[in-house]
Amino acid sequence: MRVQLIRHATLLVSIKGIRFLVDPMLSAAGTLDPSPGTVPQNKNPLVELPQCVRLETFQSVDAVLLTHTHRDHWDDTAIRLLPPTMPIFCQPEDSLKIIDDGFKNVTPVNDTLTWNGIELTRTSAKHGVGEMADKMGPVSGFVLEAENEPTLYITGDTVWCDEVREAYDQKRPDVIVAFAGAAAFTSGGPITMTAEHIRRLCEIAPKSRIMAVHLEAWNHCSLLRRDLRSYIHDTGMGEQLVIPNDGETIEFRCAEFAEL
Amino acid sequence: MRVQLIRHATLLVSIKGIRFLVDPMLSAAGTLDPSPGTVPQNKNPLVELPQCVRLETFQSVDAVLLTHTHRDHWDDTAIRLLPPTMPIFCQPEDSLKIIDDGFKNVTPVNDTLTWNGIELTRTSAKHGVGEMADKMGPVSGFVLEAENEPTLYITGDTVWCDEVREAYDQKRPDVIVAFAGAAAFTSGGPITMTAEHIRRLCEIAPKSRIMAVHLEAWNHCSLLRRDLRSYIHDTGMGEQLVIPNDGETIEFRCAEFAEL
Repeated sequence: MRVQLIRHATLLVSIKGIRFLVDPMLSAAGTLDPSPGTVPQNKNPLVELPQCVRLETFQSVDAVLLTHTHRDHWDDTAIRLLPPTMPIFCQPEDSLKIIDDGFKNVTPVNDTLTWNGIELTRTSAKHGVGEMADKMGPVSGFVLEAENEPTLYITGDTVWCDEVREAYDQKRPDVIVAFAGAAAFTSGGPITMTAEHIRRLCEIAPKSRIMAVHLEAWNHCSLLRRDLRSYIHDTGMGEQLVIPNDGETIEFRCAEFAEL
Repeated sequence: MRVQLIRHATLLVSIKGIRFLVDPMLSAAGTLDPSPGTVPQNKNPLVELPQCVRLETFQSVDAVLLTHTHRDHWDDTAIRLLPPTMPIFCQPEDSLKIIDDGFKNVTPVNDTLTWNGIELTRTSAKHGVGEMADKMGPVSGFVLEAENEPTLYITGDTVWCDEVREAYDQKRPDVIVAFAGAAAFTSGGPITMTAEHIRRLCEIAPKSRIMAVHLEAWNHCSLLRRDLRSYIHDTGMGEQLVIPNDGETIEFRCAEFAEL
């Protein structure tokens, strides 16, 4: 299984030869407005797509997987680029919007389904603490499982919460892609994982590799890679943490988890 | 042809299925002393290897290509890691040192040679301006050519100079990997390419893709990726410039150059 971080939450996941484009946000740097009610008010995305990306390759992926449709996960550039026939898997609450965006092959994942030999299970998530989670609307994560492949859990935009712990307990994923960045509005607490949330994830999942993304690309994500790295390193749990640069492809093999 | 930037000047070049590891410097961050007579005096390398790297994969590359043996291009970690039988191509001045380092299959490239269907041509380089170039010792670049592959010119540690222009004029490379970073001592001018040097390279090679590396990983390299990008962008020549993150793999196809 290979997971390439494109930028922010956009991933290219290859599992059993099937390629999923996750949460495509493909706009050029500085072309989208900052999220309102957040600081600093810099235009988004903060950085360009990495240089290895050729946009046209995304047109021929096997499917798109959307955790939710906020514009930092599903933007107009992606909507324009992807062919209307592209299979799209999403949470049930988003399917009408995506059909409205012009897509004809939209599959809501309520609980679990199998497609091309890959089992997709939707997981719950909380895009904020307390009332903020309701205000931000429904968000999901997904677990991808296939024979002879490591189990992959993509948290989606969530803080550390019981739902994340339950998803872990239920699936015992080998690899957890955690949407970090400590995104926040000027009040109301974090809406994605902070360094402390990643620490708790490391703590409950000591045998998983934890790949932190959703970093350094959107105006309200204040957590930097180097600060996350040193925070976790100082707890003595750095070994399992993977913080890829934009564009990096990380390969995960079943064998490495069997040894643990 | 694929060129992966590992970090600093360390590259993994795949051409016709043959994998060359270029200038391996594989030490962990902060484990090497700063270059003397430079500022800031931070320990090297400044950043870790990217997360996608598995050191053991370097043990099975097909060959190593060394532009010179300064320790930011050939370090003790690489010397310990690589098998003594690894084929190593280098400038003639370095072959005894590399044999001394324990390697049995060292091939000095004086002018040009063909190996596994790939033509390697050594190019001249100046690792500084005026007297500084003599002080820094001999350095080389290399051009790699193979049938149905883009021509690749790796400049090595050099400033903009007649030798670089001559290499370009002679080979008309499709891809130029330029060792940038504007490395310098506290006096004596730059010893690797500055933003202005990259601009001149863009100017003489308008149909080449120029991939800038040797950035943000060693204490005396002051040029940042974002500053190089905006400097070149402001000249209107940004299109051809590629500034990969550590770990990114850039694919170059003959077809894209045929169109130019």
